[in-house]
Amino acid sequence: MEIDHEPAATQNKAELLLARGWGWLTGLLGKCMNKAVKVAKSTKKLGQDDPRRVIHSLKVGLALTLVSLIYYWRPLYDGFGVSGMWAVLTVVVVFEFTVGATLSKTLNRGFATFFAGALGLGAQHLACLFGERGQPIVLGTLVFLLTAASSFTRFIPRIKARYDYGVLIFILTFSLVTVSGYRIEEILQLAHQRSSTILVGGATCIIVSIFVCPVWAGEDLHKLSASNLEKLSNYLEGFGGENTEGVLVSDDDKALLQGYKSVLNSKSTEELSANFARWEPGHGRFQFRHPWKQYLKIGGLARKCAYHIEALNGYNINSHIQEPSEIQNKIRESSKKMSSESSKALKELALAIKTMADPSAANPHVENSKTAINDLKTALKAATLENVDVLEIIPIASVASILTEITRCVEKISESVHELADLAHFKSVDPTVSPEKPQLLHRGTVKPVLLEGDSDSDDHVVITVHENYVDSRENEVSQAPYTAQRLGQV
Amino acid sequence: MEIDHEPAATQNKAELLLARGWGWLTGLLGKCMNKAVKVAKSTKKLGQDDPRRVIHSLKVGLALTLVSLIYYWRPLYDGFGVSGMWAVLTVVVVFEFTVGATLSKTLNRGFATFFAGALGLGAQHLACLFGERGQPIVLGTLVFLLTAASSFTRFIPRIKARYDYGVLIFILTFSLVTVSGYRIEEILQLAHQRSSTILVGGATCIIVSIFVCPVWAGEDLHKLSASNLEKLSNYLEGFGGENTEGVLVSDDDKALLQGYKSVLNSKSTEELSANFARWEPGHGRFQFRHPWKQYLKIGGLARKCAYHIEALNGYNINSHIQEPSEIQNKIRESSKKMSSESSKALKELALAIKTMADPSAANPHVENSKTAINDLKTALKAATLENVDVLEIIPIASVASILTEITRCVEKISESVHELADLAHFKSVDPTVSPEKPQLLHRGTVKPVLLEGDSDSDDHVVITVHENYVDSRENEVSQAPYTAQRLGQV
Repeated sequence: MEIDHEPAATQNKAELLLARGWGWLTGLLGKCMNKAVKVAKSTKKLGQDDPRRVIHSLKVGLALTLVSLIYYWRPLYDGFGVSGMWAVLTVVVVFEFTVGATLSKTLNRGFATFFAGALGLGAQHLACLFGERGQPIVLGTLVFLLTAASSFTRFIPRIKARYDYGVLIFILTFSLVTVSGYRIEEILQLAHQRSSTILVGGATCIIVSIFVCPVWAGEDLHKLSASNLEKLSNYLEGFGGENTEGVLVSDDDKALLQGYKSVLNSKSTEELSANFARWEPGHGRFQFRHPWKQYLKIGGLARKCAYHIEALNGYNINSHIQEPSEIQNKIRESSKKMSSESSKALKELALAIKTMADPSAANPHVENSKTAINDLKTALKAATLENVDVLEIIPIASVASILTEITRCVEKISESVHELADLAHFKSVDPTVSPEKPQLLHRGTVKPVLLEGDSDSDDHVVITVHENYVDSRENEVSQAPYTAQRLGQV
Repeated sequence: MEIDHEPAATQNKAELLLARGWGWLTGLLGKCMNKAVKVAKSTKKLGQDDPRRVIHSLKVGLALTLVSLIYYWRPLYDGFGVSGMWAVLTVVVVFEFTVGATLSKTLNRGFATFFAGALGLGAQHLACLFGERGQPIVLGTLVFLLTAASSFTRFIPRIKARYDYGVLIFILTFSLVTVSGYRIEEILQLAHQRSSTILVGGATCIIVSIFVCPVWAGEDLHKLSASNLEKLSNYLEGFGGENTEGVLVSDDDKALLQGYKSVLNSKSTEELSANFARWEPGHGRFQFRHPWKQYLKIGGLARKCAYHIEALNGYNINSHIQEPSEIQNKIRESSKKMSSESSKALKELALAIKTMADPSAANPHVENSKTAINDLKTALKAATLENVDVLEIIPIASVASILTEITRCVEKISESVHELADLAHFKSVDPTVSPEKPQLLHRGTVKPVLLEGDSDSDDHVVITVHENYVDSRENEVSQAPYTAQRLGQV
């Protein structure tokens, strides 16, 4: 019986193995397919998110193919020799996403090569004076000293930001010239060849970069600046608006509200863009010496505002209290007003940057939000607390307090955008209306800052906006809390 | 008379001019000297701030001088030929400040060169099949396609972070091989020469980088993580402590208190360091697969905490109220306790990271700070508000509210550091005491989140710490405010 069953068992086993193997194979294939589809999808999304990426890739291919002509085309080859390779190398290394970055790298490379080449020749000449035995020692010492010194300059922030690549190429070329010059006698001819090929490579990059669908770092910075303000505005709009009234908002709305998170870490992007923008020629609505630095100032204030919003992001202003008292209603009203007016101001400012128009449309909203602070102050002064639950008033008060800080931030942002409009000569919408200057209008009403010793205990609510404002314009890291009394502010 | 006077007048004039010229000259010289002294001072400071910078510069010089030997020393030169230049080039381009960065670049360069070289040879071979006329067209098309495709992959975040330089070198080498191979027949010999010189250059870099005063990216990240927590701790210590009691603090103290500002923008530094640290071999107390990612998690939470501190940085908890009421005293006490206990917890956590010891010494402080939240809640429930000025209670309440958020952040940081200790096998100080798990101890006491419709109006103070905690561990961007009711929290 058992013997009879054996072939069947073996067959079963084999079938099982086959089935398992098949299952494993299809599983693996399926996984691979899934992975491939996932990669393809994310790649497609990358291209769809910013089609300029696809165009950039094609541009690199184009520039490189153009430069390859140096090798392919005999007359050019006879002119340049093997150093045509340097043209290819230049294109690959120098071609960047934005025009500014490409220009910065090309110019850095060009000047550094020229300068280091000249210095290298000088070093050669000097070393020759020391005879055949002394020459390598002198050259070695010079290479060591110059390389070490240049490497150190790369730690200086100013140089790091603008000329890092130039210093690198300086070290490279100087070493190559001094070192190779020791062997190859025709160094001058080589230098001529190399510099002309670098010129060809660099010129190709610049021309393709500027004339084929250019991506301007300055324009990117400009748009980023506006969109960051918009993101802050979106949050405040959602916070003060009606749509958070206990109702769950949609995923899209949530994404919109959480947009401000990207502002928190915008510093490095902005600084990079501003550095590249400085190299760009005038383009579109931007002139050569456009005040790019002012965008960094606006960006810094926007980030500060985003920090406060992050702190605000744990509260919900609209819900939970069944029968709010008068004071609660008052605080909530003021908070909503601050939030929505700040949001409107930011939206106007973003629009003004985007369209490069006069930003004075934001002024009334800034004024309104300041009025809301004062209203709140007045209401609180007159309030009684007899029927109020402490636990209910504290969260609303905290929200009001954070919103006050945000309102002040928005005021400063508005100032900065006005400065930008002045510096960059944004077109005025209605030239008969002179832009308001809110920081001057109200300066007279600011009460002096009270210090510990002051006995005037009725008047301790001081709005220190303007003192702080002047302070912090001179010094980004405001030391105000340690020198001025700010406890009384709402 | 006038004629007599004239020479005197002329002389006077000449003297005046001379004096002016002299003044201008000395002024210019003085300015130049000032500028030079200023530059020298800031350069000196740069070196003093981090002496490793000076050492790095000397190391670059050393590596380059070593590689120059390839040219200077005849036997080696005969072996490598002109392509010894590539060794110099490799050193200049590849040598970076940290071991991880140098390794990352060297390995990227090596593998990309090898891979692209092989592919380039294949392309050559393929192009040969199309005859002399077809060859340049085929090669041109291949260069265009591969370059465009590779350029696009540089936009993929994962590749950008780790293999950006490799892709660049891939494009470079592939173009050079296909393009130059069209002319130079001895491409295989060239490839051999080039790869061996790159090997020499790369090996020199790696050896100098690792064995001469190495700078480890991983160690830097580790120290940065600890020092960031310390900076947050310093602020909270100063905020809750006695030294802000109306007295102006010294400049040094101010700098200490403002240290947290650097935490706000630490993201890019941390991510860069973590990327480089992955390439480093085991060193000192760190093994090869040290959980570097966990530092990014801790860093993210530390930044969140810093955002809240930035919001707190407008208040002063100690001053201004002449005769504080009972409730004010209570809130202030709790706030001080939260602040100082959070500070102590952070200090312990920073110390634990620094010494790679078990971080459970922070647990009691975390527990204490949580107790302070509960105390505050209880006190507020029992409080009456009859004799309290609204304007006085609001700022203190806001401070308490922000501090509550900070305390929660610190709790999460503590969790993350415990995770790190587990993952990296930090040595336990006392193995008989099992580390506490505070998030489990109190889970039973969490009340359900109330939604708008709930009528239980007495019980609306819910502490949603634990729900949020679980949420936000899965998803950094917590959506809690839009789904859960958090108004009632203190």
